[in-house]
Amino acid sequence: MLQLHLDDLAEKVVARGARRVGVQLPFGLRRRAREIAKIFGDRGIEVVFSGTPSYGACDVADAQMARADVDLLVHFGHSAMLPDSSIPVLYWEVVDDVDIIKTIRQHRDELRSRGRSVGLVTTVQHVHQLPSVRDYLVSEGFNARIGDASIRVSYPGQVLGCSFETASSLDVDFFLYVGTGYFHPVGISLATDRPVMYCDPYTEQCIDVTPVRDRIVRKRYAVIEKARAATHFAVVVSTRRGQYRIDEALNIKKLLREHGKTCHIIVAEAVDAALVQDFGFDAYVVAACPRIAIDDAPSFEKPVLTVTEVPLLFDDGPYQFDEIHKL
Amino acid sequence: MLQLHLDDLAEKVVARGARRVGVQLPFGLRRRAREIAKIFGDRGIEVVFSGTPSYGACDVADAQMARADVDLLVHFGHSAMLPDSSIPVLYWEVVDDVDIIKTIRQHRDELRSRGRSVGLVTTVQHVHQLPSVRDYLVSEGFNARIGDASIRVSYPGQVLGCSFETASSLDVDFFLYVGTGYFHPVGISLATDRPVMYCDPYTEQCIDVTPVRDRIVRKRYAVIEKARAATHFAVVVSTRRGQYRIDEALNIKKLLREHGKTCHIIVAEAVDAALVQDFGFDAYVVAACPRIAIDDAPSFEKPVLTVTEVPLLFDDGPYQFDEIHKL
Repeated sequence: MLQLHLDDLAEKVVARGARRVGVQLPFGLRRRAREIAKIFGDRGIEVVFSGTPSYGACDVADAQMARADVDLLVHFGHSAMLPDSSIPVLYWEVVDDVDIIKTIRQHRDELRSRGRSVGLVTTVQHVHQLPSVRDYLVSEGFNARIGDASIRVSYPGQVLGCSFETASSLDVDFFLYVGTGYFHPVGISLATDRPVMYCDPYTEQCIDVTPVRDRIVRKRYAVIEKARAATHFAVVVSTRRGQYRIDEALNIKKLLREHGKTCHIIVAEAVDAALVQDFGFDAYVVAACPRIAIDDAPSFEKPVLTVTEVPLLFDDGPYQFDEIHKL
Repeated sequence: MLQLHLDDLAEKVVARGARRVGVQLPFGLRRRAREIAKIFGDRGIEVVFSGTPSYGACDVADAQMARADVDLLVHFGHSAMLPDSSIPVLYWEVVDDVDIIKTIRQHRDELRSRGRSVGLVTTVQHVHQLPSVRDYLVSEGFNARIGDASIRVSYPGQVLGCSFETASSLDVDFFLYVGTGYFHPVGISLATDRPVMYCDPYTEQCIDVTPVRDRIVRKRYAVIEKARAATHFAVVVSTRRGQYRIDEALNIKKLLREHGKTCHIIVAEAVDAALVQDFGFDAYVVAACPRIAIDDAPSFEKPVLTVTEVPLLFDDGPYQFDEIHKL
């Protein structure tokens, strides 16, 4: 279960002398807004919520909250990523205390059939549990390893939807992802091209996501094929702070124009089906979160490519996932 | 038909020496993005499109476009509203040249049955046609008048979804709105509580919107009644430049708290069904575009009020439309 430790948070905020705090919540925690407001209200602290979607620390609403005159922004659920902010930001990580080892134990033999060397990977809410997962697996004869933290993440073994360097730095037989949802394990598989076992402590299932990854890659090649016939392209750049990839967008524009395509840049906060539909270009490239083109593909009526898929329009090559390696 | 006069625009932009222009289009004009890009491209000017929704001059994307290093932002389809901007903005109004008088002539007798004194009202794309509409109606024996421009609009007789002062300044038997769509004539009727004849030059229909207005007011009282049972409120403030009504939000928070409700502020760009659903408050007040609560009401699962509806929770009074009277 997710632990918010709201009393600890409130004491920290009081200690900082904040009188008015901004609160930014990921979608799954928005329903707890009233409870959070009460914790602060009981201590005489005013709360202003950010209604801006918060999919990650790339979405930190510091500029918006500066305008709302808060002393401090509490950003829930993600570890810090960006080096600076226009107001003080307290990243309040949320910890999940569910028993992971119980599920791993149930699937021990299945894991063993994938090899002996395993890389352990997870998201921030489970990252504190990785050392005990490693100890357990070592006791079972595995060579279990946790990769280093990298530029966009705070902890060894931690991944984001756009950053899997902690996995790709390891040379292992397979990866074990602990957590919930296909989003991250599929990303690990796309980024590493290695088998990924996805172990969910809530459903107690352990699933090899390789078939899902293979299906996605086949679909991506179909989208690339469709985009090959396009003449008029647009590259979409996001205004979200940790997704503003203008240099990549300019490179792609140059590449497309060298190949006789027209290409223009669209700057937007979010890339959605309406934007793709309304602007009337033949094909789009998303130089924002690299997951948009892949995960939202069913909603797009036009071909929408990632940054690393564009060269495949003109030259054969291996499929490469579009990771972000900068702040 | 809408006239964009793109060659004139391009010459103006060249004359200003701009090398890189931002272009912001309302939804109806987004499909013309390629054509617009070509006009500029032919003159060696780079284009960056804004993907931010542009519902009015309250949505001008100057800060976003400053980040994209444009020399000039061309904002299509709306007249200037805000007194300042972080980069130069050229408001490029779009003119509709459809014959309006033809339709008005067809409905002359119906108009006459509503009275002799009539106030003429429209949106920016038809506002140049109002003097000839007035001349025609005067020749038919009407006392036809055009109200002054006001703080948020540029032209006599012009309305926005949030500003109907050009109408409410006139003491007339009824208003004649020329244009397309129910959005503006219903707003005039809500804001003035006077009969509004809506004359559409494309469908050649002329419709009294009073029954629509009456139905909306009845529905608004039903929403207010539902909100009366709520304990936990949130007031949503928009970050859109011409909709940032923080003072109104703070006043409402104070009023609600004086009546024993809890109330917090949410700052967001857009107020939509997901935001209302996710945050889990009992009821919401929109201190952004005053039309959101009314026009999007069918999508909200919780009661969502306008700013002027909140006092009706605690005291009887006439229904008042929530106009914005400031920049």
